[in-house]
Amino acid sequence: MSHSAGGPQGITGRTRLFAVLGDPVRQVRAPEMLNPVFAELGLDAVLVPVHAPVARLSEVVRGLQWTGNVDGLLVTVPHKAAARDFAEVHSEAVRLAGSTNALRRDPDGRWYAENFDGTGFVAGLVAAGHPPAGKRVTLVGAGGAGGAIAAALVLAGVARLNLVDVDRARVRTVLDRLSGIAGGRLHEGTPPAGDTADVMVNATPLGLRTDDPLPFDPTRLAPGTVVADIIMSPRETRLLRTAASHGLPVHHGDHMLTHQLRLYRDFFGLYRRQDGEQPA
Amino acid sequence: MSHSAGGPQGITGRTRLFAVLGDPVRQVRAPEMLNPVFAELGLDAVLVPVHAPVARLSEVVRGLQWTGNVDGLLVTVPHKAAARDFAEVHSEAVRLAGSTNALRRDPDGRWYAENFDGTGFVAGLVAAGHPPAGKRVTLVGAGGAGGAIAAALVLAGVARLNLVDVDRARVRTVLDRLSGIAGGRLHEGTPPAGDTADVMVNATPLGLRTDDPLPFDPTRLAPGTVVADIIMSPRETRLLRTAASHGLPVHHGDHMLTHQLRLYRDFFGLYRRQDGEQPA
Repeated sequence: MSHSAGGPQGITGRTRLFAVLGDPVRQVRAPEMLNPVFAELGLDAVLVPVHAPVARLSEVVRGLQWTGNVDGLLVTVPHKAAARDFAEVHSEAVRLAGSTNALRRDPDGRWYAENFDGTGFVAGLVAAGHPPAGKRVTLVGAGGAGGAIAAALVLAGVARLNLVDVDRARVRTVLDRLSGIAGGRLHEGTPPAGDTADVMVNATPLGLRTDDPLPFDPTRLAPGTVVADIIMSPRETRLLRTAASHGLPVHHGDHMLTHQLRLYRDFFGLYRRQDGEQPA
Repeated sequence: MSHSAGGPQGITGRTRLFAVLGDPVRQVRAPEMLNPVFAELGLDAVLVPVHAPVARLSEVVRGLQWTGNVDGLLVTVPHKAAARDFAEVHSEAVRLAGSTNALRRDPDGRWYAENFDGTGFVAGLVAAGHPPAGKRVTLVGAGGAGGAIAAALVLAGVARLNLVDVDRARVRTVLDRLSGIAGGRLHEGTPPAGDTADVMVNATPLGLRTDDPLPFDPTRLAPGTVVADIIMSPRETRLLRTAASHGLPVHHGDHMLTHQLRLYRDFFGLYRRQDGEQPA
């Protein structure tokens, strides 16, 4: 990567590319978060949104991977599970989560898949004063993000994790995948299993639209139950507003992403260039 | 296309994408030229360089075409002829040139291919006070750019066009393609056929590297012969420096691109949004 005239403001033929893939993609926050990091570090790189239709994910990803100046991909809904197929190497987090949200081209040309959703979410909880170790957690939603968060919560030492999804096959898949590390702490729950939890997490898409039903009823939770959402836009979901008005502590979705930033920096090797270092 | 916070400086999930494809791509100037236009017009769009290897052009282009927020592609060396295959509709200029340098997604979803190299080059000559109408022109290089420039020179009313290329099959291809419009004015030339020309044009890649041989010897040309280069980087090629030191008028390669800017604006429909217009 070469010296920059200030990140995306000064895109030239030498600029390196990163893309965030979703369907839809309008809601992604990664460009606004990572492009200032590139600029701050003096890296000549830009992150752009890529609207990859579900039926054409393979064509879009393969095209980007053949592109010589694409160094990395971020992946969001609904591509996180399918995107594993486009990496030759998977991290332990990807294997446990069953999905990836970040792929990079390694120096040997192979693509390496990571997943920072779970560690980002747990780091956000810890930073907000809600460390999950030793706690009873109920997680609603066993899809791509839910599976990653379940793995991270188990690794973070929860006392018990109840996993809930209307699609029970998804729950069983996550239970199977984490059986080796969960040691009896992971269970299928059914709403309102959460009413005795210390932390209730929404990892479903419910709340993206203002007329979505609530993923669970926060008014039935015990006082002090932390209500967490992974939806970033809108920041104040109806779930969090209802929980807050019921006097419960709430945890916003953007924590999961902001706490992934330094993980991305390490993963993609985004470091300030030394003076005198040769551009690539 | 929606309102912008200032073009590439403010890339979000809603930003529309344009790409310029080349192999290599480091030398392209289009991002520096078009991104300020997007910003000036208040369009939420960004043009990025895409390094598409020759052997993988199809995969890269198809991936971009499946991407929902890609609106247009610019194409440079060596992809201009092959890129025709990725458009359902070809302009007359593309048919005459045998190549394309700009593709857009039309509202009906089809891709439309244009070629502005020839018209851009001729517009640059005219603006610089060297209108080619009625002149004898020798064009060295019958590749992608040369073919486009040959077509535009014939359409612009040159008295005679001598086309020169070490690959004589290329010359014959261009002669065949333009036979319907050239009316006996287009001929295969052999260096130093140009020594009786009014305008000598280099449309070969010779001059991209400082140790390249000259495409023709400008010191043997008659006084007043205009020496034109289409190489943009370096701006002062050895050909142009030699010609200038020999007292000949010179015409730089960047004219061809700068005079394509307003053509791109029309082609891609890049107009300032009206106040109150709804974002797409």
